[in-house]
Amino acid sequence: MSGASKHKVTLLAGGVGGAKMAEGLAALPDVELSVIGNVADDDEFHGLWVSPDIDTLTYSLADVIDRNQGWGVADESHRALDTLTRLGNDTWMSLGDRDFGLHIHRTMRRLRGERPSVIARDVARAFGIAAEILLPTDDRVQTRVRTDAGWLSFQEYFVRERCAPEVRELAFDGIEQARPTPEALAAIAGADLIVIAPSNPLVSIAPLLATPGIRDAVRAAPAFKVAVSPFIAGKVVKGPADRMMAVLGLRADAAGVAERYAGVAQTLVIDHQDEGLCDEIRAHGMTPICAHILMKDKTDKARLAREVADLCLAPAAAEAVA
Amino acid sequence: MSGASKHKVTLLAGGVGGAKMAEGLAALPDVELSVIGNVADDDEFHGLWVSPDIDTLTYSLADVIDRNQGWGVADESHRALDTLTRLGNDTWMSLGDRDFGLHIHRTMRRLRGERPSVIARDVARAFGIAAEILLPTDDRVQTRVRTDAGWLSFQEYFVRERCAPEVRELAFDGIEQARPTPEALAAIAGADLIVIAPSNPLVSIAPLLATPGIRDAVRAAPAFKVAVSPFIAGKVVKGPADRMMAVLGLRADAAGVAERYAGVAQTLVIDHQDEGLCDEIRAHGMTPICAHILMKDKTDKARLAREVADLCLAPAAAEAVA
Repeated sequence: MSGASKHKVTLLAGGVGGAKMAEGLAALPDVELSVIGNVADDDEFHGLWVSPDIDTLTYSLADVIDRNQGWGVADESHRALDTLTRLGNDTWMSLGDRDFGLHIHRTMRRLRGERPSVIARDVARAFGIAAEILLPTDDRVQTRVRTDAGWLSFQEYFVRERCAPEVRELAFDGIEQARPTPEALAAIAGADLIVIAPSNPLVSIAPLLATPGIRDAVRAAPAFKVAVSPFIAGKVVKGPADRMMAVLGLRADAAGVAERYAGVAQTLVIDHQDEGLCDEIRAHGMTPICAHILMKDKTDKARLAREVADLCLAPAAAEAVA
Repeated sequence: MSGASKHKVTLLAGGVGGAKMAEGLAALPDVELSVIGNVADDDEFHGLWVSPDIDTLTYSLADVIDRNQGWGVADESHRALDTLTRLGNDTWMSLGDRDFGLHIHRTMRRLRGERPSVIARDVARAFGIAAEILLPTDDRVQTRVRTDAGWLSFQEYFVRERCAPEVRELAFDGIEQARPTPEALAAIAGADLIVIAPSNPLVSIAPLLATPGIRDAVRAAPAFKVAVSPFIAGKVVKGPADRMMAVLGLRADAAGVAERYAGVAQTLVIDHQDEGLCDEIRAHGMTPICAHILMKDKTDKARLAREVADLCLAPAAAEAVA
């Protein structure tokens, strides 16, 4: 790669953790970023199509995200939702007024028959985002969560029930029939570096990789492939991944992540606190790299992104560090 | 009619003027009010079904109307519209955030196949409105306005072009196929008094009366029928009715209104300033009654409503006054 050209980095990302990683990578001057986001937690509310992970990516990269919650738009109000509540609708899904504008726009274009990935690209451009936000598929894939009280949609489990019920089983409705988008396949095949974000392996990354054609494309891609662990000392920074993995009988730590991503990525970036898991990670065929992986602010994001991107320049360094 | 029972009053109404008349009548303790609103200026914005006249009635009767503009909800913001603007949509139709909640709700239910008049009734109840808000038809009727620049939808003419182009022709698309709602027909047939509000005769009242079955039902109804003139000294209080009537070669004053409503109502309530038109109004077969018809505040609305409702009790008094 010549000094003048940029490194093509393709990130597979879920919601909040993925968006932070995306922000770090997007800020690197030598990186041309494509993010393939998760659409399996999309859902319909009040007749509008809501795409929480894609919107978190969009709002984060546009720097209009509510930094306190990590999702939704800053300076938000809930007047439309107030009316919907008054009219007798279930309004446990917190949708802000600025946010509603996007859902209205997306739904209108979907109903016109436009490809969801074209809509997502146009929205990203309208928000002034230089990175490409891509969808794994234009087809409808929906994560379902089986609890002791029955099957729930992901948002019912995640937002309405606040992850309280134990997860007995996960399913991705529609995944067998889903076709990958040509844009996602091209971003995977043409990447210098493929990064799996520190997102929930079971409900953010799994439906991405399970989209027919995507896992094979990642495996076949000539890029260097690295995953960033969402775990620090057996806990995730945000979300239910740790409890979910434990209750499903999976190892809920960086070694469990290595087990899941073995064969997809060669390298796993883990936190310094998880150094003791290096041997187990190697046993799964992955090379561990220790870093400070907690992204509290811009500096953290930039530093982690720099370390990860540098793997692309000098992958041989990976083994030396670990 | 026994002293204990209420007078059944059915009002045919357009937007702002109709809503004021509705408020006045709704406040009378001895009146049971049904309002048949105009749906011919409904339109679709951003994939959502917007029903401006019905919403003005609803917001007015619920006392959440923006009293300064006469339409829309008080304490409103425009964040959803800001997002839609950012995403490249034409956003000349000012839709507030609280208002969007209603459009989202209505659209969702329409797409489910629910009758628009059932939705309007439920919305009115959710807003705590005792009066019945009825639709003349559940079918799609849309006012089109021919200008020198071609045909416009009513909202394009009224909001986007601010009534600037001269109106050459009016059409109500879909009116021939429209079927009246049983609720509207029942409210007309069962009324003690039918009132035509001081709304635009050409674009608010005309599409109501032109809905197949409605004009005949009004004519056949045993009720006393009275219209309230929207004109005061040759001008209307709000909207383009005066200019519209003049440019279409109609008399733009209370006598012109009498000409239009002759055969539908027996009596026309006109402003004291228009006393000089009484003979002409009588020549059209209508009985003029002079009153203060400008409704600036609650007191004005209550006084005019009282005078109009009393026609129901003692219609013989009408001739005596005029």
